Amino acid sequence: MPNMKMVELGENRSVIRDLFEYGLKRKKEVGAERVYDFSLGNPSIPAPQKVNETLISLIEHTESTALHGYSSAPGDPAVRKAVAESINRRFKRTQTADDIYMTCGAAASLTISLHALLCEGEEVIIFSPFFPEYKVFVEKAGGVVRTVGAREKDFGPDLDAFKSAVNAKTRAVIINSPNNPSGAVVTSEDLRAISEFLKEKQKIFGAPIYILSDEPYRELVYGGVEVPYVMNFYENTLVCYSYSKSLSLPGERIGYIALCHEAQEREKVFAAICGAGRALGYVCAPVLFQKMLLSCLEEKTDLSAYEQNKNLLYRALCDMGYTCVKPEGAFYLFIKAPGGDDAAFCEQAKKHDLLIVPSASFGLPGYMRIAYCVSLQTIQNALPAFRELAKEYNL
Amino acid sequence: MPNMKMVELGENRSVIRDLFEYGLKRKKEVGAERVYDFSLGNPSIPAPQKVNETLISLIEHTESTALHGYSSAPGDPAVRKAVAESINRRFKRTQTADDIYMTCGAAASLTISLHALLCEGEEVIIFSPFFPEYKVFVEKAGGVVRTVGAREKDFGPDLDAFKSAVNAKTRAVIINSPNNPSGAVVTSEDLRAISEFLKEKQKIFGAPIYILSDEPYRELVYGGVEVPYVMNFYENTLVCYSYSKSLSLPGERIGYIALCHEAQEREKVFAAICGAGRALGYVCAPVLFQKMLLSCLEEKTDLSAYEQNKNLLYRALCDMGYTCVKPEGAFYLFIKAPGGDDAAFCEQAKKHDLLIVPSASFGLPGYMRIAYCVSLQTIQNALPAFRELAKEYNL
Repeated sequence: MPNMKMVELGENRSVIRDLFEYGLKRKKEVGAERVYDFSLGNPSIPAPQKVNETLISLIEHTESTALHGYSSAPGDPAVRKAVAESINRRFKRTQTADDIYMTCGAAASLTISLHALLCEGEEVIIFSPFFPEYKVFVEKAGGVVRTVGAREKDFGPDLDAFKSAVNAKTRAVIINSPNNPSGAVVTSEDLRAISEFLKEKQKIFGAPIYILSDEPYRELVYGGVEVPYVMNFYENTLVCYSYSKSLSLPGERIGYIALCHEAQEREKVFAAICGAGRALGYVCAPVLFQKMLLSCLEEKTDLSAYEQNKNLLYRALCDMGYTCVKPEGAFYLFIKAPGGDDAAFCEQAKKHDLLIVPSASFGLPGYMRIAYCVSLQTIQNALPAFRELAKEYNL
Repeated sequence: MPNMKMVELGENRSVIRDLFEYGLKRKKEVGAERVYDFSLGNPSIPAPQKVNETLISLIEHTESTALHGYSSAPGDPAVRKAVAESINRRFKRTQTADDIYMTCGAAASLTISLHALLCEGEEVIIFSPFFPEYKVFVEKAGGVVRTVGAREKDFGPDLDAFKSAVNAKTRAVIINSPNNPSGAVVTSEDLRAISEFLKEKQKIFGAPIYILSDEPYRELVYGGVEVPYVMNFYENTLVCYSYSKSLSLPGERIGYIALCHEAQEREKVFAAICGAGRALGYVCAPVLFQKMLLSCLEEKTDLSAYEQNKNLLYRALCDMGYTCVKPEGAFYLFIKAPGGDDAAFCEQAKKHDLLIVPSASFGLPGYMRIAYCVSLQTIQNALPAFRELAKEYNL
């Protein structure tokens, strides 16, 4: 007799988490080096040296109650100011500390934003392939998900489909660039088209439509690709950021919401963010990690390992006959499921202790996602299994 | 056009948080030592030495991705096991790791539990005086709050009122002992009466009623008072715990939900907890602080400072003519508002830069709460202001 929707969400864990837990179990059974776990976006690159040095220095030199005490709910004022200034420096914006709300990571940034913005029954547009939890988050906030497909050639948004999806109930659009799972980056051209169309529609409907820009992979791009900053195209933007990937701290839960300073009724929207954070039980973001950011905001993990992984895996799989989307960012390779049935292929892969995620749960069946944020060794060890699978499927 | 309920919750911050923010501002204006801020339950005692030592040792000796990577959603298995064993050792229970869900502190423990248990329109009983956020948390989870008063003599629950409040829609009862704001501890006798009554009602209604035991102050008791363990009285219990006070880490957001191992349909309820945590965006509790617990589970802050504060303040205020509830636990003194109007008195106190919380928001007007988790110096400095107020009110 608990809430049965919640029971269902707990029992049917996300496919990704499920596979990850299976991997942990399986590693215990056959040894960690024999399981090729490409399921979870858990960074394999250490946090920058400076992060751990800063944590130790804070612990050693800050008075305990000042160090570990509550911060204001939206975050430590100095940290919020530093985040705003960093955004301004990098993206030529005019953000202030008052536009920044520190969170427990990207998932919290998204749930807080959605609960802040949505009323029962309002619609949120997401582009497939999409991070499956979007649906869970939107529905918990009382919203309804409307999905729009991708162009097959480059996995950019299908603009015509997008335009017919927008209606008077549309309250938000989630953009995730670089994309999980496809690795695609939304171009300036596409972003301009989306923004211009939304601006028109806002006028017609007389109500704001927000873009939630989910950017945990912003810093993870390869070959000089640029990720346009959504606020530079559209005022009613909330950036949902996380340091999980850029500083390799996914378990520590630290990120922020940046509300565009020029958003309509900015103060009301920011108050709604504060209200939603409060009502969901997010008292403040973990303070040690907030304070760490003051010294490490623009630190970066060494991406060369991801790039090396990507190059090795991409070339090897193409050589074996797999069809891969060329990834521009994030640490995922998105490949066509041989045989066309992603679930069947991934089950078959599991028999080789190769853990990859079928794409149906990303809203686009027929593909699979390989998270290559693993050791180079794991990729090298996994190649024979990929080769055997290729043979089994006559590639 | 964001969600107006959330705007309202953001604009009308909790009275406590509002006063705290006012205090921060005021300290900048007139100097920290001239503002007597008794608003917030922000521990003034340092974390045990062992906590910071353990944090540093973990950072220095754990490989970065193992240290900062995601844990399983319900928490690190070793940590969950250690928490279960600690509960078993201290309270003679039979908890297993599978009954423990690590959270971002007590507020998260409560919101996750409420979203896990409640369906739209179901009722939650809370005893006044109560932590004001209960109402926010329950309503956000779709529930309806039903309040039951306290006995004036000892601030225990009014059992007759409780019995008439329980009905077929009652899904949960929140018990907070030691109580914020009164400092009262629920006795075994009262707990037995509540439990026996709920057991009968569960049978009659054919549906479980859960007790949520909100216990952030469990470790903060004075004069040998014992805080009975709710699971020892009632099976359908969820303990919502936080290390904020016991380890003086309120800003770090670390706590847990312990579902009684003997709860009806334990696995379904636990799945609902996992589902709610997922849907609200709580990916996992901060992992560095989870891992710290392995070495510090039963560490305690040195309570003697709180006891000294309480004794000084209690005696001084009684001598001045104030009427105080004798506190058994937590770090709050609950006193009758001279003149009867708590809001008016607290406004008057503010003119002396004395920040204390009027009790109306705790569901029991006519009192005020003094959080004495401050330095002894602050209390000593504040006494003249209390004395002047006493004069102004002819005590």
